[in-house]
Amino acid sequence: MGVVMESGAPIVYVETKKMHHSKRTVIDILRENPGFVSGEAISQTLGVSRNAVHKHVKSLRKRGYDIVGVSRRGYKLEDEPATLAMPFVADRTRHSLLGRSFRYYDEIESTNVEAKNLAAAGAPEGTVVVAEQQSAGRGRLGRRWTSPAGKGLLFSVVLRPPVDMADVHLLTIAAAIAACDAIESLTDVSVRIKWPNDLLIDDRKVGGILLEAAGEQDAIDWVVVGIGLNVNTEYNELPVALRRTAVSLKTASGKPVDRSELLARLLLSLEERYMDAVRNGFDRVLTDFRARDYLARRSISVQTRRGPVTGVALGVDEKGALLVQLPHRHVQRFHSGDVTLR
Amino acid sequence: MGVVMESGAPIVYVETKKMHHSKRTVIDILRENPGFVSGEAISQTLGVSRNAVHKHVKSLRKRGYDIVGVSRRGYKLEDEPATLAMPFVADRTRHSLLGRSFRYYDEIESTNVEAKNLAAAGAPEGTVVVAEQQSAGRGRLGRRWTSPAGKGLLFSVVLRPPVDMADVHLLTIAAAIAACDAIESLTDVSVRIKWPNDLLIDDRKVGGILLEAAGEQDAIDWVVVGIGLNVNTEYNELPVALRRTAVSLKTASGKPVDRSELLARLLLSLEERYMDAVRNGFDRVLTDFRARDYLARRSISVQTRRGPVTGVALGVDEKGALLVQLPHRHVQRFHSGDVTLR
Repeated sequence: MGVVMESGAPIVYVETKKMHHSKRTVIDILRENPGFVSGEAISQTLGVSRNAVHKHVKSLRKRGYDIVGVSRRGYKLEDEPATLAMPFVADRTRHSLLGRSFRYYDEIESTNVEAKNLAAAGAPEGTVVVAEQQSAGRGRLGRRWTSPAGKGLLFSVVLRPPVDMADVHLLTIAAAIAACDAIESLTDVSVRIKWPNDLLIDDRKVGGILLEAAGEQDAIDWVVVGIGLNVNTEYNELPVALRRTAVSLKTASGKPVDRSELLARLLLSLEERYMDAVRNGFDRVLTDFRARDYLARRSISVQTRRGPVTGVALGVDEKGALLVQLPHRHVQRFHSGDVTLR
Repeated sequence: MGVVMESGAPIVYVETKKMHHSKRTVIDILRENPGFVSGEAISQTLGVSRNAVHKHVKSLRKRGYDIVGVSRRGYKLEDEPATLAMPFVADRTRHSLLGRSFRYYDEIESTNVEAKNLAAAGAPEGTVVVAEQQSAGRGRLGRRWTSPAGKGLLFSVVLRPPVDMADVHLLTIAAAIAACDAIESLTDVSVRIKWPNDLLIDDRKVGGILLEAAGEQDAIDWVVVGIGLNVNTEYNELPVALRRTAVSLKTASGKPVDRSELLARLLLSLEERYMDAVRNGFDRVLTDFRARDYLARRSISVQTRRGPVTGVALGVDEKGALLVQLPHRHVQRFHSGDVTLR
């Protein structure tokens, strides 16, 4: 069942945005101790006040952590969040374009399909569609995208950018950069981008961007940016065929990731990159892409409609097209195509 | 009210495709004579058999001409066609992609909007939406497009081309060329194209193309090509504000144009250009565009999102982008923008 949630719910929760992943926090201590831990012990371990511990536990509960508190025994983590804490996400993004209107589903065919339908029917820019599970999740070029319920992040946002159709492709790269920023602010993994839309940790895929757009050549009607991430998926929950090529943030970092916090950060980071690109162009996105370019200087093969082309990847041009040095020939530009390492 | 018509209706009408506009035909003679003209007189004037005259009159009636025939008096043209003869159009295009499925409306908001809705709902490639009048007809960049009922041609076709989003723009040019071909095969006017989508006779606008598309960067979902033409519109039927800048085929050629025949030719010509582009690329379209380029070597001003740019138009590049020689500077490419002569 779909639930429509408008943000601006009266949740008065302030979280410091500077929470750093490498520092131990309350949740780390609770995870390390299967039984009760006293507030006093947590307070001493972290070097913060009892009151700060109490507030942090309250905030964890808002994000869906099942933490019991018993006087004179302390706190105990009963369960990690099973579902996204949407009121928390809406509150974190309450001053944001990408926080105006959320639609949250336990299960949906595809968040991109739903967002496209909403966009075509006039949904405002910033509309976000989130699902715990997709029955027909899609990747680029019609491929399937599967994720066990409650383990990944699957969402799509509606944008109406004042850019030309020819530049829409750059928003795929902007979204990929935004996803890297958000992931790295919350975990200790490093993410690279395999042009045009894959997110990789080392050589394994942790997520991807699926951008769809409609409009005239110089007047975009809508853009839907879909992001799919493997977050807390366990190795044995991945489809067998993907176990050698896919990875989750949990498997890569060794720690479960707070999906609600990650979703909030992804939305804020996406908005920041989007606004910057619309106001100042795509230079910063392209610079940041080059620092995360998985294919750079590698021997690759690009599958095109007219067959495969092989060469050495040289990064992207100012339009986000892939540049490939062909053997004994000039540099060729690719606006699309499926790339494999050789 | 909308009427859905599937082609393949059992109309056995064969018309020679080589009908040449400069040759006088039955309809010319009937138009010149307000009363009855005998079949014998027509036969002698045109140098064809009585039977050929009889068959031609039958075909004119199928196209909507109100011609009475009285024995021993001959034929008399009571009225030009008030509406499109869709069975005739469907029959002329019965072996064509753009003849599989027609939707014909007396009045509709916009043929592009209807075609987009059909396309998003899965309508097959080749679906054609035709209207005698639009209540909210649109041109490029959200401008209005008005046409009195029964005087213009207003239609949109659904395509699903195997091209990249970055190349969709070239289909605007392909459609413009197709429209020029069809118009010039039926009238004695010469049509030029004002990049990217206007059709001009001398310096006046006779029609335009409105292309909209949706999909991923390298997997188009649908393209809707809308064509609007002033066909039999009289000078005083044009909006006052447009009388100095617009023209109709009738005003330009001095003769009414058979809209049903023109629609059939437009569909056949559009299909030919489309198929050629999909199979062989856009080289031929670009070559033919250059011969019809209204802006070539003229001083122009391009309105862009970042303000106007002035220079001399140098034609289009291999992607259909407008090349403009700036004063004391390099040549700039425009993928979009509104162009005015200086």
